[in-house]
Amino acid sequence: MLHEPSGDSYGSKFTPLVVVELASDTKEEAIAWLLDRIRDKQQNGGAELLVEQLSPGVVASEKENPNMFLVGASWQRLLSGAEDVGLFKEFSDGSMRGFTCATKNSFKDFKGDDFLSMAECQYIIKHELDTLRAKDETHVPGYTHAKLYPGKSIVRRLQSKGILVQIFPLHEKEELKRLSFSWYKKIKLSLQPLDDIRHYYGEGLALYFGFLEYFTFALVPMALIGVPYYLFDWEDYDKYVVFAAFNLVWCTVILEVWKRNSASLAYGWGTLSRKKAFEEPRPGFHGVLGFNPVTGREEPLYPNAKRQLRIYLVSLPFVLLCLYLSLYVMMIYFQMEGWALSIHDENPTFWTDILLFIPSIIYAVVIEVMNLIYRYAAEFLTEWENHRLESSYQNHLVLKVLVFNFVNCFASLFYIAFVMQDMMLLRQSLATLLITSQILNQFMEAFLPYWLQRRRNKKMIRRVQKRKLLEDKELPLANQVRLEADMSTYLGTFDDYLELFLLFGYVSLFSCVYPLAAVLVVLNNITEVYSDAFKMCRVFKRPFSDPASNIGVWQLALEAMSVIAIVTNCALIGMSPQAKAYFPESDTQLILWIAAVEHGLLALKFILTFLIPDVPKHIQIKLSRLEFESLEALKKKDMTNGTKQGNKQHHGSVTPPHRA
Amino acid sequence: MLHEPSGDSYGSKFTPLVVVELASDTKEEAIAWLLDRIRDKQQNGGAELLVEQLSPGVVASEKENPNMFLVGASWQRLLSGAEDVGLFKEFSDGSMRGFTCATKNSFKDFKGDDFLSMAECQYIIKHELDTLRAKDETHVPGYTHAKLYPGKSIVRRLQSKGILVQIFPLHEKEELKRLSFSWYKKIKLSLQPLDDIRHYYGEGLALYFGFLEYFTFALVPMALIGVPYYLFDWEDYDKYVVFAAFNLVWCTVILEVWKRNSASLAYGWGTLSRKKAFEEPRPGFHGVLGFNPVTGREEPLYPNAKRQLRIYLVSLPFVLLCLYLSLYVMMIYFQMEGWALSIHDENPTFWTDILLFIPSIIYAVVIEVMNLIYRYAAEFLTEWENHRLESSYQNHLVLKVLVFNFVNCFASLFYIAFVMQDMMLLRQSLATLLITSQILNQFMEAFLPYWLQRRRNKKMIRRVQKRKLLEDKELPLANQVRLEADMSTYLGTFDDYLELFLLFGYVSLFSCVYPLAAVLVVLNNITEVYSDAFKMCRVFKRPFSDPASNIGVWQLALEAMSVIAIVTNCALIGMSPQAKAYFPESDTQLILWIAAVEHGLLALKFILTFLIPDVPKHIQIKLSRLEFESLEALKKKDMTNGTKQGNKQHHGSVTPPHRA
Repeated sequence: MLHEPSGDSYGSKFTPLVVVELASDTKEEAIAWLLDRIRDKQQNGGAELLVEQLSPGVVASEKENPNMFLVGASWQRLLSGAEDVGLFKEFSDGSMRGFTCATKNSFKDFKGDDFLSMAECQYIIKHELDTLRAKDETHVPGYTHAKLYPGKSIVRRLQSKGILVQIFPLHEKEELKRLSFSWYKKIKLSLQPLDDIRHYYGEGLALYFGFLEYFTFALVPMALIGVPYYLFDWEDYDKYVVFAAFNLVWCTVILEVWKRNSASLAYGWGTLSRKKAFEEPRPGFHGVLGFNPVTGREEPLYPNAKRQLRIYLVSLPFVLLCLYLSLYVMMIYFQMEGWALSIHDENPTFWTDILLFIPSIIYAVVIEVMNLIYRYAAEFLTEWENHRLESSYQNHLVLKVLVFNFVNCFASLFYIAFVMQDMMLLRQSLATLLITSQILNQFMEAFLPYWLQRRRNKKMIRRVQKRKLLEDKELPLANQVRLEADMSTYLGTFDDYLELFLLFGYVSLFSCVYPLAAVLVVLNNITEVYSDAFKMCRVFKRPFSDPASNIGVWQLALEAMSVIAIVTNCALIGMSPQAKAYFPESDTQLILWIAAVEHGLLALKFILTFLIPDVPKHIQIKLSRLEFESLEALKKKDMTNGTKQGNKQHHGSVTPPHRA
Repeated sequence: MLHEPSGDSYGSKFTPLVVVELASDTKEEAIAWLLDRIRDKQQNGGAELLVEQLSPGVVASEKENPNMFLVGASWQRLLSGAEDVGLFKEFSDGSMRGFTCATKNSFKDFKGDDFLSMAECQYIIKHELDTLRAKDETHVPGYTHAKLYPGKSIVRRLQSKGILVQIFPLHEKEELKRLSFSWYKKIKLSLQPLDDIRHYYGEGLALYFGFLEYFTFALVPMALIGVPYYLFDWEDYDKYVVFAAFNLVWCTVILEVWKRNSASLAYGWGTLSRKKAFEEPRPGFHGVLGFNPVTGREEPLYPNAKRQLRIYLVSLPFVLLCLYLSLYVMMIYFQMEGWALSIHDENPTFWTDILLFIPSIIYAVVIEVMNLIYRYAAEFLTEWENHRLESSYQNHLVLKVLVFNFVNCFASLFYIAFVMQDMMLLRQSLATLLITSQILNQFMEAFLPYWLQRRRNKKMIRRVQKRKLLEDKELPLANQVRLEADMSTYLGTFDDYLELFLLFGYVSLFSCVYPLAAVLVVLNNITEVYSDAFKMCRVFKRPFSDPASNIGVWQLALEAMSVIAIVTNCALIGMSPQAKAYFPESDTQLILWIAAVEHGLLALKFILTFLIPDVPKHIQIKLSRLEFESLEALKKKDMTNGTKQGNKQHHGSVTPPHRA
């Protein structure tokens, strides 16, 4: 990469890594103070990073923000930063170990060009900026309302006061070109270059794409079974028992296997055993200044009881209201459906045939719109709940959004399946919902932002070309940076995972009545890989990498869905004519049997979850070997210390007590 | 305690702590070698402990084993041992921290007499003996068949070859007298002295008694509700719905609260955040010599596939066969029951009235006998499965025993409740089973061993008194040690927890039909505290303390029981006349409703388990403060190192980067 080990001294060569954009009307004294704090030595409480102001673009228009700063760091500083963030790297013996400056030469490829990837360097710089803390300043110079207190993260305060507009890492044109070629531009089908994705975007995003790929492959058997079902039993809704039983096993097994896969990936990337850094309060968190009982630092405190009140007295009722509204809309949909059917029955023509699909399509669109609106409301509410930690904020947001989306998307299907018991309608609704929402999603997610970005892009190139005749279309750095600054911000994997969660739901809950669902989802996933890859490479600003070791709360959400799937599939089996044929005399017997089987399956699922280790054996062995070695090393150190201080019985050669 | 900080130098004063008993025919060379290894310096791979041979008793009979050795250690050695085992002690700031010799003076009461309790010293000595490893010896001197290889634990080899008969810690008469007085001898009711118990017996046993006490208190509300039910609704089996609903909530809540209680106890005792030491293979483990992939040490390896074959092809069928047998015995019991009933119906007299109870009592006794026999079979089988680790052995044993005991004890009750649907008989069976098993247990557990011990005890005292006229009944040390060596060995808390598990089952599963069950269990638990305390103090050898941080696999077992209890209680509610009265027209509706409610309750239980934090807030804060401090300390250290090696920009005073 950029930072050769030769650039060992400070300020040798400046490579811009991260862009800091301040508001265009920021006061000079605040800028000077901030740059000084960023450049200051670590001993003085600075971040010891390199900063340069971005020169004006080739076409310096008046609208251009002059307060853009490029941040970089010396090689030495990046290494010490890598130790700060607890980066894991491959050791000379092939194991993954936490990097330390003291042991740097024992790491594999340390002397190579590519020891720290650009994404890692950018992550380190972000970490160092985030943990740049106020000393004795009471406020940001020039802004008396932007209060500071010792230990407060300066960047977070600047962000919450709107002085700092954004921080983002720069793209690297050459690497991006290579990555996008191997990812989505070549024609022949192949696996995604997960390691390259991780190298460029970090572990969090690579895990998302890894899961997307895994999920697609996991769906292939379902799709393969689904196709003949669809081809040969076109109108036979009764044969779904086998499919439902297959569904049951499938959804438990794939989640367990994914957990192991994800652990393998995370181990290889060095995030599996990496310790989480101490979590700082989120930028938006506010409260009365007090002392944090854990760190002893002064920071805003917000009573937990108050937050609980907000959650249970405002957020919970609001969510329930939204759920009620969603169910109300569903009932309207059923009325429309009935109305369309009555028109069709009165006078069936080609147009009334099409009319039959209209309510479903309208409902599918309405669902998407409601999901979108609710999403904003949920974000607002969760922000207002004033969570101290980003992780707690995320969990509350995910919970709110998941519950609503689940009800909004699946309530009508459950109603049709279990109240109306109309398998024909269920099939039709499922197909319409699935296809409509896929088309809408792909459009909203990739093509619309791409089109907007393209317009902006062209405008910029045109403007540059107007003044200066460039042979190639390469933009100078200043313009490139400004162009990237204008790109949309990728808001994280939340929406992408949510989409996969809903698709997982469609397949695992109801695909037995519409076996083609798996096929549709496979097709959707393949286009999803391309459109997501495309949007990451071309539409969005480069995101900071996120050292994730698993897919986090989504694993839990998918597990919950698979439990619901077991219950649903058992109920669907119980309603099938075949099951009823076994107990011709009484429904009671049938229901009791189904309930017993369902309980058995649930128990089996939990036992399986318990029995199958989350981390594959060979990785477990590697992890315990590391742990053992560090224990032994500690013992040996103690032993030497102990004999040195304890008593005066030194021997010439200190033999270790047992063979290590 | 014994070890005053003044005894700082080696070999100052010998206090016997642990007894090592070798077989009476052990060869002299083996003894000499072993003592040498134990006494040898740590640098030479020895244990650096003090050993003395026990002098013959006052009445040296021929039967007496001469090869009894008393093991002690210098104060300095105990401290370094405390660091080896990772003991947590109270720090000067009130937090619990891992003890290290380097920081010893910062620990609270370090200068006091009682810094290490006798139980802790004994645990340390056991640890040091267990980790005493062979160097270049190929076998135990004098025993060519007792193979050794570098790194093999000497004590484990001696144990597995029968050369070492037992290792046990000595009782401390004075402390024991004080403890037993505050524990079970004083008349007024009070809480158990858990801290003293922990001090004398270690954390594992103290947690058992803590759980026993907690469980008893948790049962009090059930008992209070149960008594009026029993008094006023004597023959009214229909009013149990409220009780069943109460049961549902109760069994979930008490387990969650216990988890928090147990975390509080474990935090106070310093075992909560203590890291598990690296687990050594169990003494009985055998296999082909190879290299452990984790430690790289030479040790026996046994292929996992072979073990799995033994488990699934032998153990599993055997367990299933036992379950079948148990169900077969149950059917015989029902035949006897029917036969007794028919005799009673033919000619009802006082004697046939009593005859009605006979089958239940016989069945209860048979159940206990079967449990006992099965227990031995399970131990044999699990031993034969050749598990490498003690923890894995324990888990497999617990699983085997739990499944069988559950079926054996509860199958008949489930059969009566759900197949025969005879609530009258259920009530009677439950009462008989509960009372009989309680009486049997108390007898087998405490009174029988006590009676045996008392006989031995008296014989010894008589023998001593015959020769020497002792004014007081105090025995000299040598006789005391021999007396203790003859006492029964306490085999751990397994059986005690198993008993509580079954009692928990009786109460949570069926107490709604027999509300007096809770009362009976409360009474049983109170006597259980006394009899268990008594047997610990008077009947058994002192056990080595076990630094447990929770009740381990039993928490899981109780959770599983509470899930079964939810299902059972819902089913019992569904069978009640009140529930049936709500749906007079159809059973199907009723069953569907009950199933829906049950699923809701199960979901609620899992959500509660998820939402209620396992560790109370104030302890979480303390733990994260420690973690934060160690992180900060590490950073500061790195910072100093980094600036020292990285570049030459030293300042006179190194200011820490941010206020800690």
